[in-house]
Amino acid sequence: MINQLSQLKDRLKGKPLRRIAVAAAEDLQVLTAIKQAVDDNIVLPLLVGNKDKIEALAAEINLPTDRVEIVDNQGEAALSAQMAARLIKEGRADVLMKGSVSTADLLRAVLNKENGLRTESLLSHVAFFESPYYHKLICVTDVAMNIAPDLDAKVDILNNAVEACHRIGIAKPKVAAIAAVEVVNEKMQATVDAAALKEMNERGEIVGCVVDGPLAIDLAVNKEAARIKNIKGDVAGDADIILAPAIDAGNMFYKALNFLGGAKSAAVIMGAKVPIVLTSRSDDEETKYFSIVLAAAME
Amino acid sequence: MINQLSQLKDRLKGKPLRRIAVAAAEDLQVLTAIKQAVDDNIVLPLLVGNKDKIEALAAEINLPTDRVEIVDNQGEAALSAQMAARLIKEGRADVLMKGSVSTADLLRAVLNKENGLRTESLLSHVAFFESPYYHKLICVTDVAMNIAPDLDAKVDILNNAVEACHRIGIAKPKVAAIAAVEVVNEKMQATVDAAALKEMNERGEIVGCVVDGPLAIDLAVNKEAARIKNIKGDVAGDADIILAPAIDAGNMFYKALNFLGGAKSAAVIMGAKVPIVLTSRSDDEETKYFSIVLAAAME
Repeated sequence: MINQLSQLKDRLKGKPLRRIAVAAAEDLQVLTAIKQAVDDNIVLPLLVGNKDKIEALAAEINLPTDRVEIVDNQGEAALSAQMAARLIKEGRADVLMKGSVSTADLLRAVLNKENGLRTESLLSHVAFFESPYYHKLICVTDVAMNIAPDLDAKVDILNNAVEACHRIGIAKPKVAAIAAVEVVNEKMQATVDAAALKEMNERGEIVGCVVDGPLAIDLAVNKEAARIKNIKGDVAGDADIILAPAIDAGNMFYKALNFLGGAKSAAVIMGAKVPIVLTSRSDDEETKYFSIVLAAAME
Repeated sequence: MINQLSQLKDRLKGKPLRRIAVAAAEDLQVLTAIKQAVDDNIVLPLLVGNKDKIEALAAEINLPTDRVEIVDNQGEAALSAQMAARLIKEGRADVLMKGSVSTADLLRAVLNKENGLRTESLLSHVAFFESPYYHKLICVTDVAMNIAPDLDAKVDILNNAVEACHRIGIAKPKVAAIAAVEVVNEKMQATVDAAALKEMNERGEIVGCVVDGPLAIDLAVNKEAARIKNIKGDVAGDADIILAPAIDAGNMFYKALNFLGGAKSAAVIMGAKVPIVLTSRSDDEETKYFSIVLAAAME
């Protein structure tokens, strides 16, 4: 069982370095996180962007340029994103990371029909937490990308999280489809969708995981609460994946753990041909670093 | 500044005991919390319900019956709720607490037009947290009662929380109207409502507090995140009240703090003539006790 994000590094031992393409790599914070991952022998960076700026920043933080490859682009950052996506499509890297380019431009490059990295699935945000109050890593989705997913979108979001779990060695994740209550109430769409997802799992339409829901957070993560409310099943009190009903709810939960819960986190975008590291300006160094580790640890 | 729930007890020193009417008091867990509050000289209970059962439970936990008043009702629990509401209306108690009666029956008694305790306001759930990761108590609303409040309802919910803050001595609470992002986006109703609430506060339609929004949780509670994202104002990083956009989001946040955040909490229902203590079966003893303290501490 994985209970610390740093354990994800163990998965990389004895394997070839993972190659990470950074789109518009002329970004001090991103390069600082990349340097730590290079120092720890986790990744081989392919830095796409303004070569002069990248070299200047690399010198500033002592990032050894003999351990990185730089692909020069003196044009707009959006072009660096397109170049990075194309390089991945050509098989030259295993992970994409956002540098000094807007999220919109990065996603446009990823979703480009001709040269992009799109698959049949929706893109979705998948976060993993190491919490001092939980006995193992817990995955939360989608807290940042899909605003108000319908049932179809929730299936993609769920499948993306399950795939992320599988790829870091969580073989059959337990999924709690979250709502504010544990009864199905037609006035609360979250409860209806949660019940549908559970049924789809039981009928074999959603595989590779065990789904239960609707469950509120107490029932998903606390065995005693589940006992008191008489909720049975494998998921209650032992969830691996928290499926949020919509972005408002997921985002509040994610930030509660990060900013009021003493947790450490890592996140990737799933649903493209490779995992995408897309951290926020307000994420700390450690979150950026662990997000790289998470993406690199995916088999 | 209040940073511990136990400090709320200090507000009661040298004042007459607060009288709490318990509807259908034949409930072991509720009486256990009441006993602790009696032992701490916080409340004078008026126990409405099945006298024989109440006396048997009181003997079991050594609740001294000379320090409680029992109003006998051998009939249905719903009737006890109606009796408790009427006693409060007659001025015989200052706080209402739910015992062994369904929430629906309790609220029906409270909202009864003739003998109930309704006001012009909506009823709403107001919780206070003591978090090891925040520098003062933080209030969260509405996480349990109003499913998908429109703007009008949010104004009532906000006013109820502000009143709760005032009544425990937080003179001008800082309110963060929460959304997943800090820009107004018409696809995200939470952001539109948050901006409207801020404007209503600036124009004097919402008083007794300072409102900012839309703010995501990181910006509401973390000064460094606010600095990085260049969010100014008094609320950012120092919020007293977290106004959740809807029940799904509020509930996930509330339970994240309670079950994955090491926090202690207390909660009351506001918007009736008196505060109502309405705890859940899965709340622990401490939460029930602090909820009584919170209601009793309200002036």
